[in-house]
Amino acid sequence: MKACGLIVEYNPFHNGHVYHVEQSKEKTNADIMIAVMSSSFLQRGEPAIIDKFHRTKAALNRGVDLVVELPFAFAVQYADLFARGAILTLSELNVDYVCFGSEAGNIQPFLEGYDHYQNYKSHFTDELHKQLDQGLSFPQASKKAYQTIDLATGEIDLGQPNNILGFSYVKAIKELGSTIQPETIKRTKSGYHDEKIEHEIASATSIRKEIIKDRSITDSAYKALPVETIEHLKEYLNLTSNWHDWELYFPYLQLLVQTKSHQELRQIQGVIEGLEYRLKQTVQEATDFHSWMTLLKTKRYTWTRLQRMFVHLLTNTTKEDLEKYSEMKQAPYTRILGMNQKGREYIQTIKKDMNVPLISNIQELKHPMLVLEEKATDAYYIPHSPKVKQQLKKQELTGPIII
Amino acid sequence: MKACGLIVEYNPFHNGHVYHVEQSKEKTNADIMIAVMSSSFLQRGEPAIIDKFHRTKAALNRGVDLVVELPFAFAVQYADLFARGAILTLSELNVDYVCFGSEAGNIQPFLEGYDHYQNYKSHFTDELHKQLDQGLSFPQASKKAYQTIDLATGEIDLGQPNNILGFSYVKAIKELGSTIQPETIKRTKSGYHDEKIEHEIASATSIRKEIIKDRSITDSAYKALPVETIEHLKEYLNLTSNWHDWELYFPYLQLLVQTKSHQELRQIQGVIEGLEYRLKQTVQEATDFHSWMTLLKTKRYTWTRLQRMFVHLLTNTTKEDLEKYSEMKQAPYTRILGMNQKGREYIQTIKKDMNVPLISNIQELKHPMLVLEEKATDAYYIPHSPKVKQQLKKQELTGPIII
Repeated sequence: MKACGLIVEYNPFHNGHVYHVEQSKEKTNADIMIAVMSSSFLQRGEPAIIDKFHRTKAALNRGVDLVVELPFAFAVQYADLFARGAILTLSELNVDYVCFGSEAGNIQPFLEGYDHYQNYKSHFTDELHKQLDQGLSFPQASKKAYQTIDLATGEIDLGQPNNILGFSYVKAIKELGSTIQPETIKRTKSGYHDEKIEHEIASATSIRKEIIKDRSITDSAYKALPVETIEHLKEYLNLTSNWHDWELYFPYLQLLVQTKSHQELRQIQGVIEGLEYRLKQTVQEATDFHSWMTLLKTKRYTWTRLQRMFVHLLTNTTKEDLEKYSEMKQAPYTRILGMNQKGREYIQTIKKDMNVPLISNIQELKHPMLVLEEKATDAYYIPHSPKVKQQLKKQELTGPIII
Repeated sequence: MKACGLIVEYNPFHNGHVYHVEQSKEKTNADIMIAVMSSSFLQRGEPAIIDKFHRTKAALNRGVDLVVELPFAFAVQYADLFARGAILTLSELNVDYVCFGSEAGNIQPFLEGYDHYQNYKSHFTDELHKQLDQGLSFPQASKKAYQTIDLATGEIDLGQPNNILGFSYVKAIKELGSTIQPETIKRTKSGYHDEKIEHEIASATSIRKEIIKDRSITDSAYKALPVETIEHLKEYLNLTSNWHDWELYFPYLQLLVQTKSHQELRQIQGVIEGLEYRLKQTVQEATDFHSWMTLLKTKRYTWTRLQRMFVHLLTNTTKEDLEKYSEMKQAPYTRILGMNQKGREYIQTIKKDMNVPLISNIQELKHPMLVLEEKATDAYYIPHSPKVKQQLKKQELTGPIII
């Protein structure tokens, strides 16, 4: 029985991973599809629009057989660390393939690119540091560095977002000495493969804004989104009266910046290079999250970087909390969020050979990474009413979702 | 020209200081009335129902000539420290008298009581520590200790709240070697001297709860409160859509307890004797502030003590922030919140002899106590909309209120 791993976030508006289950299955000819899914906050530094449990249900409905959690400590990080966390998690589940979407759409240039990168690694690193010193952001600097070693043109353009992430997966597989075989399917920029859908969604972001503003599914959203997605969105809104969006967290972030000292802000992951001063200088002027971001943004402090920092501020995640995880060689545990019958059978088969604890709720194990996970969940749910918070939090303390 | 100092909080429902301007003036025969007023949070550990600027206007309307700020670092503390801060502040203003309300209503037993206390101080201290070790709260333990040295019976019962505070004023005056002459007027338990009003307000607390719940002045509030008070309450509600009450801050406190580690909680002023564990254990269960308090309260963790701790948690005020102020011998500055023409003239007269900076907004001086003040203001305003916050915060950055 062959297993294929997918790395997903499952935010209805933000990525197309949701649409690549079928194609990945076809590509790899796998019997079972396993998704490792970001928990409450996403790689680009945003709260997921609905919680991880509702997104798990959505993934299972979309043909995934088993959903495991990408720990918070990995989920809101730069591509290489995100990728390492995802590959470590999938490795424990003994998957044969990892299939990701990329602009390139062909795995060969990634593999050749990796060999090339290995040969020119010192060139790459020198150029990266040079560009960083000149004030470029990490993504910009690494793009320039890839250009220097000829990896930003031709078949694999490491200036494109999904190629970058895909290259990070390949790097993680190789660096960890994993036997997982990487595969890729073509992914267009908007992340949707169905040309019709892609056409209809002129701008996923604008629809997202529209429905969050209205707190209802608008006509254009009905046209643009798959029916199951709409159902999950509606269900969550009925339950909580909210869809998660940074604006809901704005007063909390304000309070934290206003009451923490510069020294305390500096301890937060992502508060670097004097950002603590800029945060304090702008907090008073901002009238909402978006206006604050606009005030904060510079060439160096990119939108994504600032958003990730805000996730860490909200959850009180310090540099010290995370530093021990960047060189991790093994996932600390495997947490099942949900599965169908096939997923269950698969787990029964591989269980005896697993090297790390298999858990389905955060009470089953004491681990500092689960402490971070719980903080992220609590912070994520904070805009809800107390009763709704209690109800949703229960999902974190009970077994996996089984369909 | 004789000046009389009053120590006020000016919360419409919580104390009667507001009603004793006239009586104090009569008692001391002073020409000018100066009030030192708690800023955003009150001694019992509560957010003031309306902000310090609106309470300043109310005080000026009530016959006070000059209102100065009791710094946050002193305002939310146990009686002795609160008193020390107030007396230090009034000393800089060269007042001749301090007049306070007390159940005793006669200054002589306070003065004799102080001499007696001096003679039996070591007895008192021994008994206090013994009682504290046995698990009593500070107010309970000090009541017992006063009993041991015969100060909790007869003319001055140091088991009664206003007597305790009054005795702390006398102690502060004596210990600081101040020439201020203490005076007292009789104050009944509810804090209202007008028998009629007192009768009508069977329970000020219940009216407070009622109007906060309804966000409007109820019939019983109209009957019970002076017309100016009602006007100030209405004005603030129109401006902000809120009256401040702990319930507004509940989700913020939840987030802070959920995302701080035990070690971080332990650094907060008032988190003592394992309270950090109790906070974490109960945070999930509470559905509002009141239910949380009920879950937290014990013989040792009194309501007042817990509320003060929550003020410090909300404002991120640590033990380290405050430890340097408990032995202060001089106010760090004098901040004018508001004055009338008479107050202005008085300030002109004494200005040249003042030993500390005279300021009217927090931008005029760099001092760590003003950093704490600004944090308290920001945290206090956090439940308002961003635009209202900006508007109200301006008051902190501009001159005094002049009527």
